[in-house]
This record gives sequence, structure tokens and C-alpha cells, in this order.
Amino acid sequence: MSIIVIGGAGFIGSKLVRKLQKKEENIIIFDKLSLGSLDYIETDKVEFFPYDINNIPLVLETLKGREVKQVWHLAANSDIPAGVANFDVDLNDTFLSTVSTLKIMKEIRCKQIFFASSSAVYGYQKKKLYEDIGPLMPISNYGAMKLASEAIISSSLESFLEKVCIYRFPNVVGVPATHGVILDFIRKLKKNSGILNVLGNGLQQKAYLHVDELIEAMLFINQNTTNGMNYYNIGPSDDGVTVKDIAEEVVNQVSPNAKIYYEASDRGWVGDIPRFNYSIDKIKDLGWSPRLSSIDAIKRAVLEISTQEGKQ
Amino acid sequence: MSIIVIGGAGFIGSKLVRKLQKKEENIIIFDKLSLGSLDYIETDKVEFFPYDINNIPLVLETLKGREVKQVWHLAANSDIPAGVANFDVDLNDTFLSTVSTLKIMKEIRCKQIFFASSSAVYGYQKKKLYEDIGPLMPISNYGAMKLASEAIISSSLESFLEKVCIYRFPNVVGVPATHGVILDFIRKLKKNSGILNVLGNGLQQKAYLHVDELIEAMLFINQNTTNGMNYYNIGPSDDGVTVKDIAEEVVNQVSPNAKIYYEASDRGWVGDIPRFNYSIDKIKDLGWSPRLSSIDAIKRAVLEISTQEGKQ
Repeated sequence: MSIIVIGGAGFIGSKLVRKLQKKEENIIIFDKLSLGSLDYIETDKVEFFPYDINNIPLVLETLKGREVKQVWHLAANSDIPAGVANFDVDLNDTFLSTVSTLKIMKEIRCKQIFFASSSAVYGYQKKKLYEDIGPLMPISNYGAMKLASEAIISSSLESFLEKVCIYRFPNVVGVPATHGVILDFIRKLKKNSGILNVLGNGLQQKAYLHVDELIEAMLFINQNTTNGMNYYNIGPSDDGVTVKDIAEEVVNQVSPNAKIYYEASDRGWVGDIPRFNYSIDKIKDLGWSPRLSSIDAIKRAVLEISTQEGKQ
Repeated sequence: MSIIVIGGAGFIGSKLVRKLQKKEENIIIFDKLSLGSLDYIETDKVEFFPYDINNIPLVLETLKGREVKQVWHLAANSDIPAGVANFDVDLNDTFLSTVSTLKIMKEIRCKQIFFASSSAVYGYQKKKLYEDIGPLMPISNYGAMKLASEAIISSSLESFLEKVCIYRFPNVVGVPATHGVILDFIRKLKKNSGILNVLGNGLQQKAYLHVDELIEAMLFINQNTTNGMNYYNIGPSDDGVTVKDIAEEVVNQVSPNAKIYYEASDRGWVGDIPRFNYSIDKIKDLGWSPRLSSIDAIKRAVLEISTQEGKQ
């Protein structure tokens, strides 16, 4: 029996694959390598196919004769502004990838899906983000297509799935970094070590989790839930840190003499959420708690990513 | 300035078009006529195009040189079991039709959308269905694709729309009937006037609104809300009637000697919701209330639909 990881060569997927490898699972990765890389995985120990999951006939042909016990779906567009500019980016990579995954699972009679969703499904809310609040009015196409994915997974549970885990991710940091604010800042400072221009006024506040803790939480939820619909926020215990905190930490570690410039707007880009208040009571009740605070996760990730990028 | 009605030749769309015609609006209808019919509209008074809205280049070509002030999007698959059997039905007709609508609106710089959503977005909940409850876990692909549509409309409001009205419909009855339980029962009795076989045990309870009241409510919401996101349940004041009530009303009016047979299951089909408790407090607070109860709407619709189908 095999486990499929879609997006298994990406930032989070490749870390998950390593953990599953340690459990001696047979792993099949589908990853079209838009942001992922073969460098992130030990390809001799997994079956790797560089296919777009939306190419259903090709994937089904590949899976012929294999028994699959579960699917982890972590493939998505992770460039939120690109998705706002062009509907098709999130439509294809974030949503239709889920539809294709479900069509494939129905065909091969696989009944367990573990899905990387996002805090972006909540949109811009003033109330505390418990898993059961409404309404769900996303403000980015990325968030919209994650919510759409949750919805079609939910209806598939009614018709053919047996077990669903939906993980609503916060901002996740660590290596191998393929995108995100820390990588962006470090690369800007590599180009110009004296200046760091920040989008927005720096006061946007978000919760950050280190990728190692995220993987641990996902596996914990997977192992401690039963059949049916399971959906959990995953995040740190605090309300997050500001972009200003991150910019200062990056400058501090990477280029201590750089000057930081901010803009007047309170949002970095369309679809960006200036502040949110994320509840992780539900996963704590299940028995898992994060050890790192947002700022600790950021500090560790800045060190890791600046090493990845080559310190100046 | 014109108004586009997508699905304007369907059951609800054609009724809406008549109302808009009375207000002397210039109306452009796109309807691929899968369930709709040219018989339902006065084609000499509107511009009618039998195009699938998903054919974006054709629609854009058609709209060249026209100014459009608002779009009513009422096109959707209305056959829930067909959508559960085959993902692509609701994907294309219920969701991608919304994505295409938004792409077209962005292109022609139209900023007002009025969207026919559904109580199916709520899934199977025990709590009262206020507009702001969560989680939203639909149990039919139809409901999932209505929720996905709401989500992408919501994110489009952040990037280019100015005004959104989302109407969450209950079950709607009346003529011209193209689908639904009353039409189904009447057609069964036309085939065999002595027996009516009902899917499920007949105890599924739902709220029903007459189409004339629905149109009135939609226009009321449209006229009494401002820019931004407006989302309203529309329905009768009561908790609905059972399938058994409907079956008895149809038999009573159409074939009084027929015997009614039920099944043991409490659900008619996958994705069918056995009972729900719909709140219309929000639209009442806005100033609109329905006059007909569910059973009155059913009685009136049975009379209208049996006339449409030709009494036995």
C-alpha cells in the first residue's frame, strides 16, 4: 500500500515526505516542479513523477496496479498576488488540482485525503478565528480556491471518501524556502545590502509556524482522528508578529546596517490581511501544542533561509 | 446601459427577465438552453444569445460596444444527483460559469453582480441556518460549487467588483417548472395514475418559496443595499414541509386515488438534506417578508405545474 503526496517536492511537501520516509512508507510523489525541486527529496527512496495532477489520464496510467491507502494534497499556487492578477493561476493550481485529485481517488478507490488548506479561507474578520466561525468570505483568489477545495472535499466525503483531514495553515516558515516574506527580504538585501523596501506600512500582523512543527501537527491530527470530517487550524499560540518585526530580524541577522523603508498603506497587496487572531484551541484539545512562538519561528527561519541563500 | 442575465431563459431567470422588462431595462440574456427554453421569454423584447457563458471569447465578442451596468448570474446545474455522479456537471455549469462571468465582467469593467446561491452551502447542520454560521461543509457537489462561487465572488470584490448581492435560495417552486419534486411527482402520475413512488421515507423537510416571491425578494435586496458584500437567505417564515406533505398535495390535486409508496431511508439521494431550519431574520430586518407559507407555495405551485403539464 502506497501513500501519494501531491506537491511532494515543494517546501512543505518535501519535509512531509522525509518524515513519511522515516516511517518506511512507500511514497509516490506527483509534483510538476513549478516551485518545488528534485533537490529537496531523496529521489532514490521514493517514486517521483513530474506530472501535473490535472493530467488525469497520465496519473491514472501511472497508478495502474498500485494500491493507494491515502493521498496528501499539498500542491497549490503560493504566489497570492499572481493569483489575484490572473484567475487561472489559483483556479488551476489551487482548486482544479483538488478536483483532479478527487477524481483520481474516486477512480482508484482511495478513501483518505489529507488536505493543506489555509487561514485565508476566513477572509478579513474581526472576530477570533475559530474553525466553526462564519461567514467565510475570502479576500484573495488563493483563499477562495482553498475554500472551494474544502467544499468539494466535504461533498466528496458524503459520496465516496471515508476520512478527511483539512489542515488550515498559518504562514509557514523554514527551509527549503521557495517563496515568502523572509526569502523576499533576504534576496532584496543580497541585491542591495543598504536598503530594504517593505510593501505596506509594516504593521500587518500574522501568525507564523515553523515547518517542522507544522508537519508534526499534521501527522498528529492524522493519527488522532477517526473517519469522517476533521478540520483544524494549525498555528502558534500567539497572535503573531508584524512585518516590521520580520524586517528587523532579517536586517539584524543578514545586513545590520541596512535601512528599512515602509509604505503608507496598511495592506501589502490585494488579498493580504493586515491582522488576524487565530484560534488553535481545537488542536490543543486534541493534544498537540506548538513549542515555538511566532517570533522564535521567524528567528530560526531567518537563520535557515540566510544559510540556504548564502550569507553576505 | 444594459443588464445581463445569465441563465435568463430558465425557471427563475425567465421570471426575473419579465420583471426587469416591466422596468424597461435593456436586457441581454445568455442561456445555453440546457433546461431553459425560448418559450419562457419574449425574445422580441430582449437580446438573446444561446451561448454557454464559459465560451468567453464568444461572449466578449458579442458584448463589444455595449455598456453593461450589472450582471445577474442564475445559470447552474439544477440536477443535484447528476452532479454527485459526475464532478464535471457542477464544476462546469455551477462553478466555472461563475469564474467565466467574473472574467468577462473584469474585462468589460462591469462592477455589480447579483448571484443566485443556495441554502446548500450550509451542508447538513443541526443549528439554525443564519447567514453567518460556520463551518460551511456542503454535502452535494452542487452546494460545494455554489460555495466556491461565493468565495471567488468575495475575493473579486476585493480586487475589482463594487457591489455584490448573494441570494441564498431555499427550494423554489412555481412555473415554468423545469425540474424539482413537484414536476417529478406529476410526471410519475401521468405515466401511472395509480401509484406514486417517493424517494426516501417522505420525512425530509424543506422550506419552499414561490418563485414570484423569490424574484420580489431579490429585487428588494438589490434596491435596499449599498456597495460591498451583501448576502441574504431568502425563504418562507416557516421550517418547511415534508416530502410526504408534497406527495399528498400532488396526489390530492392530480390523481386522488393514487397510492403513495415510501422507502426506508431518511435521505432521498446523496447530497439531499433531511431537514433544515432556515433563518430569514436578516432579510426581514431589511424590510421584506414572505406572504406565502411553504405549504401555500406548494399548493399554488402544484396547481400551476399540473396546468403546465396538462391535467389528467
